[in-house]
Amino acid sequence: MSPELHPDVAVLAPLLGTWEGRGAGEYPTIDDFEYTESITFAHVGKPFLSYVQRTRHPGSGQPMHAETGYLRVPAPGSIEIVMAQPTGLAEIYEGAVVGGDVPLVVDVRSAAIASTSTAKEVTITERTISVTGDELRYTFRMAAVGRPLGHHLSATLRRVG
Amino acid sequence: MSPELHPDVAVLAPLLGTWEGRGAGEYPTIDDFEYTESITFAHVGKPFLSYVQRTRHPGSGQPMHAETGYLRVPAPGSIEIVMAQPTGLAEIYEGAVVGGDVPLVVDVRSAAIASTSTAKEVTITERTISVTGDELRYTFRMAAVGRPLGHHLSATLRRVG
Repeated sequence: MSPELHPDVAVLAPLLGTWEGRGAGEYPTIDDFEYTESITFAHVGKPFLSYVQRTRHPGSGQPMHAETGYLRVPAPGSIEIVMAQPTGLAEIYEGAVVGGDVPLVVDVRSAAIASTSTAKEVTITERTISVTGDELRYTFRMAAVGRPLGHHLSATLRRVG
Repeated sequence: MSPELHPDVAVLAPLLGTWEGRGAGEYPTIDDFEYTESITFAHVGKPFLSYVQRTRHPGSGQPMHAETGYLRVPAPGSIEIVMAQPTGLAEIYEGAVVGGDVPLVVDVRSAAIASTSTAKEVTITERTISVTGDELRYTFRMAAVGRPLGHHLSATLRRVG
């Protein structure tokens, strides 16, 4: 039996489940690319959601990126995300969440980024996630390897579970 | 079909699988506690392992802690761990790994800790993980909420899958 969603994160209920879809990436220092993606948001009844994400090459199916973390709502309208990336990067995001009677929108910016000594330099990251019914869209912007903040990723996913 | 383990992380092969067991925690600012724990280390053929952990109250089964992240081996004998915690904490660990013909020992210390503005203050964390056959043991030390570095957690788990 699945526990009840903790009231602190009730606003995030539209995220819960597994999502699949397709995205595209670009950045001044790399070639444009596309990917297929799977995301799962889950909970155990405590005041956070867990997040697990994987992308694959749309042609070969080979794994590309992965990331995982947690979402918290420390006060109504506020959101914190803690994210780990296998590239050696850990991100703390803070920002705003709007939901309830309107489509869910999460809009966050990095409050801190910590990295291993072998990771690429990333100084600012921003994410916007929106959910309307069974469709999830996100965009990701970053300042990395000496470049100013700019668009990096966008994707559209459908709820599959 | 499961992909082959990436040669960069071959030394970490003894970690792969799911582990269950029991641990105990203490810290000068809290009451001693015990917990049951489940840990899974997995891989997708890329040069990192993924890590997912959950603990539960040994009596009620209620979820307690959770954490998730990735392990990398940037050079032989070196290890980096990126960890996210739902308490609002992200940790970057760096340290040493010894394995091969001897039991696996991973010994790491926080190189950076990033936290949300609502998280408790944690300034240093250290982890030692050892695997001998189907037994995994770890200890966790931290300096938090103004206290010096001290023992916090120890656990022993058995491989279950």
